[in-house]
Amino acid sequence: MTQFTYPIRIYYEDTDSAGIVYHANYLKFMERARTEWLRQFGFTHHQLKEQYQFAFIVRSLTIDYIKPSLLDDNLSVTVEVTRAKKVSVFMTQEVLKSTERLCIATLKLAGVNAVSLRPQPFPKEVSKFFHDAIRATN
Amino acid sequence: MTQFTYPIRIYYEDTDSAGIVYHANYLKFMERARTEWLRQFGFTHHQLKEQYQFAFIVRSLTIDYIKPSLLDDNLSVTVEVTRAKKVSVFMTQEVLKSTERLCIATLKLAGVNAVSLRPQPFPKEVSKFFHDAIRATN
Amino acid sequence: MTQFTYPIRIYYEDTDSAGIVYHANYLKFMERARTEWLRQFGFTHHQLKEQYQFAFIVRSLTIDYIKPSLLDDNLSVTVEVTRAKKVSVFMTQEVLKSTERLCIATLKLAGVNAVSLRPQPFPKEVSKFFHDAIRATN
Amino acid sequence: MTQFTYPIRIYYEDTDSAGIVYHANYLKFMERARTEWLRQFGFTHHQLKEQYQFAFIVRSLTIDYIKPSLLDDNLSVTVEVTRAKKVSVFMTQEVLKSTERLCIATLKLAGVNAVSLRPQPFPKEVSKFFHDAIRATN
Repeated sequence: MTQFTYPIRIYYEDTDSAGIVYHANYLKFMERARTEWLRQFGFTHHQLKEQYQFAFIVRSLTIDYIKPSLLDDNLSVTVEVTRAKKVSVFMTQEVLKSTERLCIATLKLAGVNAVSLRPQPFPKEVSKFFHDAIRATN
Repeated sequence: MTQFTYPIRIYYEDTDSAGIVYHANYLKFMERARTEWLRQFGFTHHQLKEQYQFAFIVRSLTIDYIKPSLLDDNLSVTVEVTRAKKVSVFMTQEVLKSTERLCIATLKLAGVNAVSLRPQPFPKEVSKFFHDAIRATN
Repeated sequence: MTQFTYPIRIYYEDTDSAGIVYHANYLKFMERARTEWLRQFGFTHHQLKEQYQFAFIVRSLTIDYIKPSLLDDNLSVTVEVTRAKKVSVFMTQEVLKSTERLCIATLKLAGVNAVSLRPQPFPKEVSKFFHDAIRATN
Repeated sequence: MTQFTYPIRIYYEDTDSAGIVYHANYLKFMERARTEWLRQFGFTHHQLKEQYQFAFIVRSLTIDYIKPSLLDDNLSVTVEVTRAKKVSVFMTQEVLKSTERLCIATLKLAGVNAVSLRPQPFPKEVSKFFHDAIRATN
């Protein structure tokens, strides 16, 4: 399993009047990448909710903004699982412009019940998928 | 009943790299104004959903962008009901900078069931409120 | 020249608590489609600004929301030029889910100076491109 | 100087189909609060750019999401300066619902040239303001 990479194109909607991508929007790009990474392995938010009343929630994150990006830029976003427990998973994500790192984030996501939003363990196959992903990158 | 006006401040998040407010964001400002206008008269989206399983949905709109607005601008958004039927209501909204009109929109909103999203007549007191609002501006 | 179509995936960021795509976000999807349509024919916002100090601005639009879309939906957005003048161009755009039409918009865009935001005629090759596009669909 | 607090109302635009405020949007709320906090003391992004070609940029942040918030919620956002240097300033910001803490973030902002985006020391009066703010909370 090679590292997952998702392409992002920068549109007017992503930029602000400082001429660069608005800082909060990188979190959207990272969420798109996580969603496509899960989808590639057969998991969709819609199906996880229907089948298990399960949803992911972001518990915490740290992000470093290294270089700005601009309108029309073509970026890529990576997803790497670093650690997985029963109801929480830790990831590292980078946003790259070609090979140059624009920002890097570490995130803690948790599993919750899609209705009550209370903690709910990952479905078995999701848990297995996280552990496989960790093994594959070590 | 005087015309309802809601203040909007322009932040970085609202602008784009052309240095002006991104065109789609005026629809957000108008929705904030409609929400506060309803709230001022005792209606909240949350309560309408809890009590009647009711929600508003935008069916169509026309918007003219006359002048751009800029970071740090202080705008005001108006709400005026022009016509109301059982499941649809027509409004005119303007975005102003001081007395200068930046954009004007006409919208058709419909009442829907909050779960099925199928058409559902406005709750009686909402319907009465719309008709009172129309009378007050004539 | 066949009709241009651009794919859009729906993420959490696009939806609202009514469980559907927030109405203003369709304008973003349409702008992404216009941008990629121009890019496919060699025009980028960045290059038009650098080379001609030129930018597009949305002057007016009408949008009809026919059916809602949901998280994880895979949509497509069309772009069709219907009429072009020296400083303004008229387009029709649709958002489709498979073959089902979710919304349709007609837009008027204008050419402006990227700094002053005053009207500025389309660069010659852009103007030619619009007229070619109109001929190709007739 | 008492702690600065800025009110935020939650609209449809802020929520997602999980029924709660989308995680990236808290960064927007925090930026609005920082902007109003600066404005209250006489500093606006527009004026800092015009007068000094100065702008703020977010260098890094850590955010913990403790409890979700919902449509129609009335929140408040705090701003507290914890440390200031020549080109960087550290802040802590909380988002509260009544007295309940929904999320807490620590941020590092830097001063940059508004055109080149290279590091640029804070204007003297901004620097003095940060140091006054730190002293006032100790």
